[in-house]
Amino acid sequence: MTTRIQGAIGSQPRAGRPASVFDRWLLHSMMAALPRAGYEVQLWDGSTAGDNTGMRVLIRDRGALWQVVRDPSLHFGDLYSEGRIDVEGDLVTFLERTYAALQAGRSSRASPWWRLWTDRAPSSRSIAAARDNIHRHYDLGNDFYALWLDREAMQYTCAYFPEPGMTLEAAQRAKMDHVCRKLRLRPGQRVFEAGCGWGGFALHMAREHGVQVRAWNISREQIRFATERARKEGLGERVTFVEDDYRNLSGECDVFVSVGMLEHVGPENYRALGAVIDRCLAPQGLGLIHTIGRNRPEAMNGWIERRIFPGAQPPSLGEMAAIFEPAGFSVLDVENLRLHYAETLRHWMARYLAAADEVRARHDAVFARAWELYLAGSQAAFTTGCMQLFQVVFARGGNNDLPRTRRHLYA
Amino acid sequence: MTTRIQGAIGSQPRAGRPASVFDRWLLHSMMAALPRAGYEVQLWDGSTAGDNTGMRVLIRDRGALWQVVRDPSLHFGDLYSEGRIDVEGDLVTFLERTYAALQAGRSSRASPWWRLWTDRAPSSRSIAAARDNIHRHYDLGNDFYALWLDREAMQYTCAYFPEPGMTLEAAQRAKMDHVCRKLRLRPGQRVFEAGCGWGGFALHMAREHGVQVRAWNISREQIRFATERARKEGLGERVTFVEDDYRNLSGECDVFVSVGMLEHVGPENYRALGAVIDRCLAPQGLGLIHTIGRNRPEAMNGWIERRIFPGAQPPSLGEMAAIFEPAGFSVLDVENLRLHYAETLRHWMARYLAAADEVRARHDAVFARAWELYLAGSQAAFTTGCMQLFQVVFARGGNNDLPRTRRHLYA
Repeated sequence: MTTRIQGAIGSQPRAGRPASVFDRWLLHSMMAALPRAGYEVQLWDGSTAGDNTGMRVLIRDRGALWQVVRDPSLHFGDLYSEGRIDVEGDLVTFLERTYAALQAGRSSRASPWWRLWTDRAPSSRSIAAARDNIHRHYDLGNDFYALWLDREAMQYTCAYFPEPGMTLEAAQRAKMDHVCRKLRLRPGQRVFEAGCGWGGFALHMAREHGVQVRAWNISREQIRFATERARKEGLGERVTFVEDDYRNLSGECDVFVSVGMLEHVGPENYRALGAVIDRCLAPQGLGLIHTIGRNRPEAMNGWIERRIFPGAQPPSLGEMAAIFEPAGFSVLDVENLRLHYAETLRHWMARYLAAADEVRARHDAVFARAWELYLAGSQAAFTTGCMQLFQVVFARGGNNDLPRTRRHLYA
Repeated sequence: MTTRIQGAIGSQPRAGRPASVFDRWLLHSMMAALPRAGYEVQLWDGSTAGDNTGMRVLIRDRGALWQVVRDPSLHFGDLYSEGRIDVEGDLVTFLERTYAALQAGRSSRASPWWRLWTDRAPSSRSIAAARDNIHRHYDLGNDFYALWLDREAMQYTCAYFPEPGMTLEAAQRAKMDHVCRKLRLRPGQRVFEAGCGWGGFALHMAREHGVQVRAWNISREQIRFATERARKEGLGERVTFVEDDYRNLSGECDVFVSVGMLEHVGPENYRALGAVIDRCLAPQGLGLIHTIGRNRPEAMNGWIERRIFPGAQPPSLGEMAAIFEPAGFSVLDVENLRLHYAETLRHWMARYLAAADEVRARHDAVFARAWELYLAGSQAAFTTGCMQLFQVVFARGGNNDLPRTRRHLYA
């Protein structure tokens, strides 16, 4: 990807005093904490550190240098968004190299900077705070997401590309079909969906499989959009969208499904989520949770948590056990679709960049650059294995109504 | 299954004093702790408690009653083996009902007996103790296991029955093929197998896939048997059997596989096992662990842990995270094959009962009944969902050499 969104301050270095001995020491010491990063960092006066590989990071002023050294995971994003830091070369590749260097640096902890570069506690995820967190992300305007998500079902979650060369629309359909096959949906079943986005999957299940769906979400804009869409499609009898928190689910269902909500729930609430499912799921019911995950417990990148996804924290499988184990659920199937998310993000990024002028016009250049960085960083996180995508199928412990093999997923 | 192994003391109640008021109170109070057990319990003098369903447990003397009430999970097995307790009706069904009642009783904890019926700490699993634990189970004599395991590969682990009506031999072959497909074996790869039993799977991998296998086991009898078999098959160049503990694995491998060893490792050693795999697995390597598991952390049944499998403790997936997460491994695929183990056990039991006279002649009636109970109890544990069978595929976090889908497992 070479198209890039220009920073608000343009691409020229700022005028200013030359870098001091201390500035250059800071720069070298930061690069020493990122072993074999595979790029060069250049200060505002032209002084450099790192590897001359043709890829270059430009730090345009002293304040930017000091901030990024103080807390790179928090400040890099803002400085990039404002154009005070820029990257010459492919942004995703730069971020992939940085993630790899951060992983290597963190595990060696050779540099004293690692004592300073700690993660902080995420935002609150109480019922009230969750509503605010979700509002800040998902209520940016349905039109904004419509610019770069798939045009059919507005799926803001990992697509599934079983064949190379699929369009984003086909891959999102394939994802929904894959999940439906895992859930073995049958007409007339009662499905509860927790965190339904713009309702595309709820409508798909009702339309393609004849199930009755109740779908919960705390984003007012999404619920409004989804309800209107159900009405237009004539599916209002089969799908009900409820503006409420997952903690308030009630009633009984044959199928519980949640695609892309768990990232916002937070490990401190997993046991409560398991209790909610335990309260609702019929004895022979099936459940599926689709979520971004981690190989080990880890805090979200500080900048993404602050600017993009307040309260977000993708779990490790070990952390997810707190959903299933206290309630005695039996995990039947886990699939890791990490590289499918990287491919999804490549599609989103291409569409996003094609719509960059519109994004800048509606919001501003800082916003447009922030989302460019977020999409590029997410792609890099999936290609480097910093993030995973787990689909977990589960049932009650005593449910023997199980398929003999998983062959039906590939029929 | 109606064929049953007769207890050493025959099927007649012992002569003795009639049951006292206290005996009958004990009996009723025990049955009250097992809600809706679905059978009757009869004491030596004919007094009964429970549901008259045609299924009946006979307690033949006062000592047996007192012991089973004091600690049913530990003493029932010994008392059944000795014939001081017997069961009229299908043994597996009796155990299924008991497990269901135990689960219901344990979660309600309505009865004060549940304060007494606690699990105890398992045997040590230090390197020295592990050798002794394994010796006590696996060195009972290869001939003993040959009586009832599959005749081709002597697989003492869950088989795979993708089609109904398969023979045990076909299902064990299908299991090995399924694992090999998950591992995507290619000729010339270096495979490490931890806990190789009688070597059947190591030989299968070498023979069918042209890989080089190093296989570890601390059971001397099994290693001797496996080495001899490799020699006979002319596979001595491709397979090396090593009599040593998994903690002493060294060298580099492309594939790490362990089928049915983790049950003996113990959660306190999972992190060390993960470190061993981390030390050995090549950057683009793949790993698979096949193990009996639990829906939540739970101690092994006291009698099985003492008499059959010293040190055994099947883990929950949350507990297994201690293998993968500290080392940063990425879990790619988890499949739960619980009902396949129930089917495997049906086959083993049928062969075992057919060979019961031989078992009794070689060992004694108590031993023969103990193993009958163990096989029946294991089958009941899998059909009721008290036990799981997990196959977990994993790789290093940064390994992108992954298949797009799992379709190749079903080709």
